[in-house]
Amino acid sequence: MVRTMDIACFIMLVIWFPSQIIAESSLRLHYFDMPGQGEPIRMMLTYGNIPFEDVRISRDDWPELRPMMPLGRLPVLEVDGVLIPQYVAISRYVATLAKLHGNDAMENLQVDFLIDTLEDLKQKMFSYGFETSEEIRKALEEILKGMVPYVMEGFDQRAKDNGGYIAIKRLTWVDIDFLCAYESLRNILNIDILNTYPNLKEVKNNVLKEPAIEKWIKSRPSSVTLRTYDLKSEYSKSRSEL
Amino acid sequence: MVRTMDIACFIMLVIWFPSQIIAESSLRLHYFDMPGQGEPIRMMLTYGNIPFEDVRISRDDWPELRPMMPLGRLPVLEVDGVLIPQYVAISRYVATLAKLHGNDAMENLQVDFLIDTLEDLKQKMFSYGFETSEEIRKALEEILKGMVPYVMEGFDQRAKDNGGYIAIKRLTWVDIDFLCAYESLRNILNIDILNTYPNLKEVKNNVLKEPAIEKWIKSRPSSVTLRTYDLKSEYSKSRSEL
Repeated sequence: MVRTMDIACFIMLVIWFPSQIIAESSLRLHYFDMPGQGEPIRMMLTYGNIPFEDVRISRDDWPELRPMMPLGRLPVLEVDGVLIPQYVAISRYVATLAKLHGNDAMENLQVDFLIDTLEDLKQKMFSYGFETSEEIRKALEEILKGMVPYVMEGFDQRAKDNGGYIAIKRLTWVDIDFLCAYESLRNILNIDILNTYPNLKEVKNNVLKEPAIEKWIKSRPSSVTLRTYDLKSEYSKSRSEL
Repeated sequence: MVRTMDIACFIMLVIWFPSQIIAESSLRLHYFDMPGQGEPIRMMLTYGNIPFEDVRISRDDWPELRPMMPLGRLPVLEVDGVLIPQYVAISRYVATLAKLHGNDAMENLQVDFLIDTLEDLKQKMFSYGFETSEEIRKALEEILKGMVPYVMEGFDQRAKDNGGYIAIKRLTWVDIDFLCAYESLRNILNIDILNTYPNLKEVKNNVLKEPAIEKWIKSRPSSVTLRTYDLKSEYSKSRSEL
């Protein structure tokens, strides 16, 4: 989408990217008070038992804070005071810390191309969610109508082949990214794809059953953006249903 | 951009992503007969002395081949007969094989967030290059007018701090991706950014001086899309100018 926000972003910013990072000891995640692109990162940090400060920026404070953030976007990961943008890069870094990446180059290729495919879908979905022009929304909806089943069908087949995990035969960050995307799909497009894809339902449940993920979802702040569906509701079901 | 092509892509495809890859021994890169998003991959494979078949698909053959390609897009890397899409994922895999990645998670975070930033710019640049609607082209041009100097200023500062390399203090795949993006910028936007950014000029020259890269560029097939500028022309200068 072509938006004036994109243009403003690059004109207003004066700071840029740091060249040096000293250590990995102190992590602060800056994001809005919503799941969106920050939630997979929060979930992975929690899963990996990696201490971090969950900095939630209100819509009101954002205009003032924005010029201080590299690229003028969130999420941003602050590593010992140094701000790093780009959520996919941040996610990969955090996945590595949490041991949710592949074990070798070939496994990581499998993870990465699926992550990129899910990101393509998420980008269109979030664009749709925030778009105000009715004409552009309709065009995006048409794309998503073809894209969602196509991607989910492929992911479902892989989940079948990999015993309930999307990339390889164990939990990786694609599975967590998928769970968060699923929540967003229900809230933004108002569809529950999992009735059609039994193997992806197994992926969802495999992630939900992870004790650290369960603890996180049950205790995370409620978000105003989750009007239709909150993953928390899954834990009100009996364990046998998961 | 919202294009009917995007919609068609997801409707027409019947095949999807493979779950199993047997080995890493045989590589074929499928891409159009142009630099674009395939060239950094070709360059890295050459740099790493990794044998591959450089499969160049003509515009005429593409409609027939497209349904056979996962996601209906190129580049696709064929690994022992298995087709893998998503050029950033492919690039990262090839970068790892060619030892052009970072040495640890933090170095890879530095590489990855810069790659993602360059990809944001490249996506807008390629969209602009292929866009037919004059209105959308103008909007994209406005975005690029702000985005190009913003990104290049940051990259230039980093290249200064890192002694002629963008991510860390040695050659990584960002530097190669940058060199290819620079060529595309000159051909698509018809601007030479390097007169303004001396440290990025050093990056360009550091990559051009790599013997394997020099050999590749000098002998690669000429492309009809390089009407304005071909990296080959750099080697007609005296070595002291590089």
